[in-house]
Amino acid sequence: MNTELTRTLANFATRTRFEALPKPVQAHTVNAFLNWLGCAHGGCREPAVRIGYEFVAETGGPPQATVIGQRLRTDVANAAFVNCISSSVQAFDDAHLPTVTHPSGPAAAALFAFSETRQISGEDFLTALALGIELQCRLSNVLVLPPSHMKLGFYVTGLTAPMGVAAAVGRLLNLDEQKMTWALGIASSQSSGYRATHGTMTAHFRPGHATRAGVVAALLAAKGFDCTSDALEAPNGFLDVYSSGGDWGQATHKLGEVFELLSNAYKPYPCGIVIHPTIDACLDIRGRIESAAGIAAVTLRVHPAALALTGKRFPQTPLESHVSLYHWAAVALLTGKAGLAETQLRCINDPQISVLRSAIKAVPDPSLGSGESIVEVRCDTGEMLDSHIKHARGSIARPMSDADLDQKFLVQVEGILPADRARELLRVARNLTNLRNVGEQVAATWG
Amino acid sequence: MNTELTRTLANFATRTRFEALPKPVQAHTVNAFLNWLGCAHGGCREPAVRIGYEFVAETGGPPQATVIGQRLRTDVANAAFVNCISSSVQAFDDAHLPTVTHPSGPAAAALFAFSETRQISGEDFLTALALGIELQCRLSNVLVLPPSHMKLGFYVTGLTAPMGVAAAVGRLLNLDEQKMTWALGIASSQSSGYRATHGTMTAHFRPGHATRAGVVAALLAAKGFDCTSDALEAPNGFLDVYSSGGDWGQATHKLGEVFELLSNAYKPYPCGIVIHPTIDACLDIRGRIESAAGIAAVTLRVHPAALALTGKRFPQTPLESHVSLYHWAAVALLTGKAGLAETQLRCINDPQISVLRSAIKAVPDPSLGSGESIVEVRCDTGEMLDSHIKHARGSIARPMSDADLDQKFLVQVEGILPADRARELLRVARNLTNLRNVGEQVAATWG
Repeated sequence: MNTELTRTLANFATRTRFEALPKPVQAHTVNAFLNWLGCAHGGCREPAVRIGYEFVAETGGPPQATVIGQRLRTDVANAAFVNCISSSVQAFDDAHLPTVTHPSGPAAAALFAFSETRQISGEDFLTALALGIELQCRLSNVLVLPPSHMKLGFYVTGLTAPMGVAAAVGRLLNLDEQKMTWALGIASSQSSGYRATHGTMTAHFRPGHATRAGVVAALLAAKGFDCTSDALEAPNGFLDVYSSGGDWGQATHKLGEVFELLSNAYKPYPCGIVIHPTIDACLDIRGRIESAAGIAAVTLRVHPAALALTGKRFPQTPLESHVSLYHWAAVALLTGKAGLAETQLRCINDPQISVLRSAIKAVPDPSLGSGESIVEVRCDTGEMLDSHIKHARGSIARPMSDADLDQKFLVQVEGILPADRARELLRVARNLTNLRNVGEQVAATWG
Repeated sequence: MNTELTRTLANFATRTRFEALPKPVQAHTVNAFLNWLGCAHGGCREPAVRIGYEFVAETGGPPQATVIGQRLRTDVANAAFVNCISSSVQAFDDAHLPTVTHPSGPAAAALFAFSETRQISGEDFLTALALGIELQCRLSNVLVLPPSHMKLGFYVTGLTAPMGVAAAVGRLLNLDEQKMTWALGIASSQSSGYRATHGTMTAHFRPGHATRAGVVAALLAAKGFDCTSDALEAPNGFLDVYSSGGDWGQATHKLGEVFELLSNAYKPYPCGIVIHPTIDACLDIRGRIESAAGIAAVTLRVHPAALALTGKRFPQTPLESHVSLYHWAAVALLTGKAGLAETQLRCINDPQISVLRSAIKAVPDPSLGSGESIVEVRCDTGEMLDSHIKHARGSIARPMSDADLDQKFLVQVEGILPADRARELLRVARNLTNLRNVGEQVAATWG
């Protein structure tokens, strides 16, 4: 066990300079921010966000930060909370592929809120965001990757995002190493969440809660609220209770040399990322048949985690569609589409889609990777079609291009802002590294 | 597994009437409130509370509720947060003996905050508090008691208090059963905390965080923020991830007939409750010797959990003294006292106490109960003294009397309010059941 784990991470979060971030890391972090900002706009009219906003309107603090899509400004913790629900609620954000944790939402929402409370340069913002994402992904690796025995039921983002956020915000607040260890400890004292709430509003409450947790941790630590300095690795500490063993050294192995955030992928489809290769395979097959009317049987071969995480056979709501492998396979085969419209009730309740969704067979296949899928379709004619996707669109092997991300951003933001301001906001976000004052320049686009 | 667990608890929390609470339960709940209110005054000048208050002064919401000991009023969630840190920070509050969870602080702090936002009768307040404590204790039983395999490292109060608070506040908000299931689910999505932070400010942040979690859960559920209806018992749900088996039926067994809150004990000494029998034994021996100067050797025989939870040999701060079995044994033997003064640095750093603290031997003895202790003292003269405490002062078998609790209350409150107003506040708290408007009548004493 690494007895200096918390301190090593705290040192990394306080000391790493912008210049020490390799160019691909910088570019990836700009994309993380841009993708987050788009998703936070895209989701801001959803029911879960509206309720979160009502709650904040009644109990929130001083007007320190913007709630995206609302006139109200509120305190940094509550602004981060609502904006993170927004960026999560369409299941369209991003995922660290090795662990399926969602790293950008909590850290970006928190930094975005703080960027309106003080002058923060683009470089400082980007550095803090990169470090926050990196810490979250590395701690997620420890919990999820072999030889760990963390229970699958725990919600990884809920466990590790508080520390990513605390590191990111603590960095902006210039915490020293000692206080950063406290911030990581206070944050991990709030680690929480399990998977049973998937498909409900509470699933998206969880990252919102995680960003608040990290904000609170950093603000308290900055004021001298203390904690043990080894909270992550101590006996009866964070890793001890959540990991049941595992290789804790992964958290700090080649820290600052190898960047886990480069394994963060931006979603082309608004649903659980383990569904994506199946969508690709179904879209591929759909492109090769004249009509979907003649489909007689469909078999999906997927990594076991895909079924465990997204095995909902009968989605009833848009939120449940996010975790229904069957829904997306049916939709993609029948309509050739896999966008936000396909999460809506009109699509979920479509009789043809319902019938096919019920008939699809899904088989867990441990020989497949988590980003891999094989779809086999038998037609009424007896013809067999199949498609084997080894790396889904949007994965690290087949990443969304900058142009893809820009297009996704514009679609999301144009639902909320006029087209010219959406394009201006895109320009500002793409230019993150060169901004003199992030909060001022981003907020200006809301006018 | 009880597949209706969440719904059964939600039904209990929404339907149980004041009249259905047996008289001893009512009396016990009045004491829980009174003891909480005293502790929240007693702790309100501590450094951890001051920092928590500074944080709230900067980020808190509208002046809905009082922060005890401060001029500022803030939103209900933040007021509950700070007041619960206050009531926890001196380790003087209460403990459900079978599980060593601390049930009153989070629920009482939350209800106290809400009592200023609407007219709440004493009966309604007491009913909500009793139900909240009951749920927290019952869920703690499931996690802690045989045959459960919850890891000792988890902090029980952090895991179960959010649901107790959600039930209590949800009751005040008149949630229906469906929304109450959501509130319990949202609350348990925030369950968190581990023991490694014991002895630091973060140890007391945890119950403050738990009360906020429950408040947020109840407020969101009231607005229709949804969750699964079986969050506690579902696969990959709360009990699944935290309990590793156990008898989940304990949560609802004889619900409304047998009350776990009757096993909640109020502390006579400001430290971990597993230390208390050792203090009693040492005070007993101290009363039988003329001077402590002749003590040559001390052996403590204690339940293994006492050492696991409070085995800190060298406390450096008042907060660390709360979890140092050795400190209290030394102090009680040398001074014959075990009060707040004995948590202070002057006492911790006293050379005589330090020397004895270092020399004491503690032996875990699985044949002893968790509330049991045997202390053996060898004197320079060769004389052997011992004391065997089977039930500590303050335990259910030897409870604090109402007069004891009143005295404890006055000592705590008189540090904050003038004596006449402290006595008036005591009168109001003792009369809880008959109050027409709790918030108005309690707040009146601050003038």
